[in-house]
Amino acid sequence: MADLLIVGSFALDTIHTPTTSRERILGGTGSHASYGASFFTKVFASGVVGEDWRSDDTKMLAAHNIDVENLEVRPGTKTCFWEAKYSEDMNYRDTLDIQLNVLADYHPVLTEAAKKCPYIFLANNPPTAQMEVIAQCEEPKLIVADTMNFYIDNMKESLLELLPQVDGLILNDSEAQMLSGKRDLFDAGDFIRQLGPRFVIIKKGEHGSLFMGEDGELCVLPAYPSRQVVEPTGAGDCFAGSFMGYIASRDVADYKTIRDALLYGTVTASFTIEDFSFDALRRASREEIDARFRQMKEMLQF
Amino acid sequence: MADLLIVGSFALDTIHTPTTSRERILGGTGSHASYGASFFTKVFASGVVGEDWRSDDTKMLAAHNIDVENLEVRPGTKTCFWEAKYSEDMNYRDTLDIQLNVLADYHPVLTEAAKKCPYIFLANNPPTAQMEVIAQCEEPKLIVADTMNFYIDNMKESLLELLPQVDGLILNDSEAQMLSGKRDLFDAGDFIRQLGPRFVIIKKGEHGSLFMGEDGELCVLPAYPSRQVVEPTGAGDCFAGSFMGYIASRDVADYKTIRDALLYGTVTASFTIEDFSFDALRRASREEIDARFRQMKEMLQF
Repeated sequence: MADLLIVGSFALDTIHTPTTSRERILGGTGSHASYGASFFTKVFASGVVGEDWRSDDTKMLAAHNIDVENLEVRPGTKTCFWEAKYSEDMNYRDTLDIQLNVLADYHPVLTEAAKKCPYIFLANNPPTAQMEVIAQCEEPKLIVADTMNFYIDNMKESLLELLPQVDGLILNDSEAQMLSGKRDLFDAGDFIRQLGPRFVIIKKGEHGSLFMGEDGELCVLPAYPSRQVVEPTGAGDCFAGSFMGYIASRDVADYKTIRDALLYGTVTASFTIEDFSFDALRRASREEIDARFRQMKEMLQF
Repeated sequence: MADLLIVGSFALDTIHTPTTSRERILGGTGSHASYGASFFTKVFASGVVGEDWRSDDTKMLAAHNIDVENLEVRPGTKTCFWEAKYSEDMNYRDTLDIQLNVLADYHPVLTEAAKKCPYIFLANNPPTAQMEVIAQCEEPKLIVADTMNFYIDNMKESLLELLPQVDGLILNDSEAQMLSGKRDLFDAGDFIRQLGPRFVIIKKGEHGSLFMGEDGELCVLPAYPSRQVVEPTGAGDCFAGSFMGYIASRDVADYKTIRDALLYGTVTASFTIEDFSFDALRRASREEIDARFRQMKEMLQF
């Protein structure tokens, strides 16, 4: 059992689905990843928020095996805010508003304890900030980063500088296509691996995920067949965080552990989509996650 | 080991991909399904073609464990013809031309041997023709049908009459959504099962397939991770035919056999997409299909 550092955004989201709107609910890549990961191991969550951040959200994270010493509340600033609207069929979402606020000028500074985490997940953040984290890590065993279309478009050079510094990259299918210029996801994975990471994980939303490793390892997994899809924001971050949390809990990143971690990421994220924000995941127990793990294991057993 | 009757279309296809065009190549739902199935069991293929049909194609089928006595060559008519063009990213295809020709007035008439097949796959055909087949089958153990958007749109009443007469329905994701009016594929599957079939299989193309059974059985499988996608026409029919072929070869349709059949359908269809028409599948051996089955089994083993 080893500790996991997660650095990412901690945000307030306003989300509109065809039937419901929820205002200023807990969101952010770092928070979703940390909560998922903390089912498996102790997480050091790092990020910055503003004065409008609710201390109850910090308490909720802290009560779930998450060290919040590195979650800075900066006076005189506002928390990152994101507003999005889902399409009628929930297949697409439009960003209606994004206010980086305190995130606009963010330079992560880690506590001594956080610097010593051997497992590091760099959730969505500017690649420059992700590299600042890596520079502070003292005993890294496994560094995995997420990225997004915005940084691929606008910070490509920094992103290409980051990639050789990470062991793995996790990103969406459309982002993998954008970064590689390849339509075929396997081609995209090959291309991205040549940019530095030993392995690539491509998230395909409701269609599951894809892992490609340095020795030709290839694993394609379906999503958990959830019957209760309410709102999917954060599922990809929860998947990535839980993946890393499971690996840290085993303190080894061989292929067998990685595959189990992919399945744990899959089933943990399946709770995220079953309600807004953290609502369904907060109701879930490790036992329920394990039950879905066994259910998928059985479904995929031939 | 039991025999399998497959009734469907036998056609000539002209296919354009962004890089290549191939004219009047062997196509049709019945031919793709029969060839896939014949890796596993003896197939009785039933359909009608015109004078322009190539006898070499009949010979090719006959040489692959397919009884062609029920493949009628009708003088004075032309074979069904279909022309389609794939989009730049191969994600979509437009039908440029469809000439039903001899299929326009097709009433299947089975030989005595074909009537005795216990396993029956009704590949894409008008639901009226599919019901005419069922009426002739003397000892059915398992009847499974495929359908498509055209019949859902234009022959809904006949389709609704057919559904209680089949054990299973196989269709694409968009067709399942169209037939059910439900966006969520699990909801669509529930809805369709209430129209009659004991089980529903939804084909999701590159995203795999979904099985829903009468006792709440639910199985989601990814597609085989093929690195060589050339042209996918026929893959769905090959999947369905191979699924049925494997079940007939075991002569039992319990859930364990159905699941193995889904995986065999998946890996057999993976050859179809790796070249035009039957070219890659003709090069494949049962041993290579078994090798891909074992590869997926291992990939999905947790």
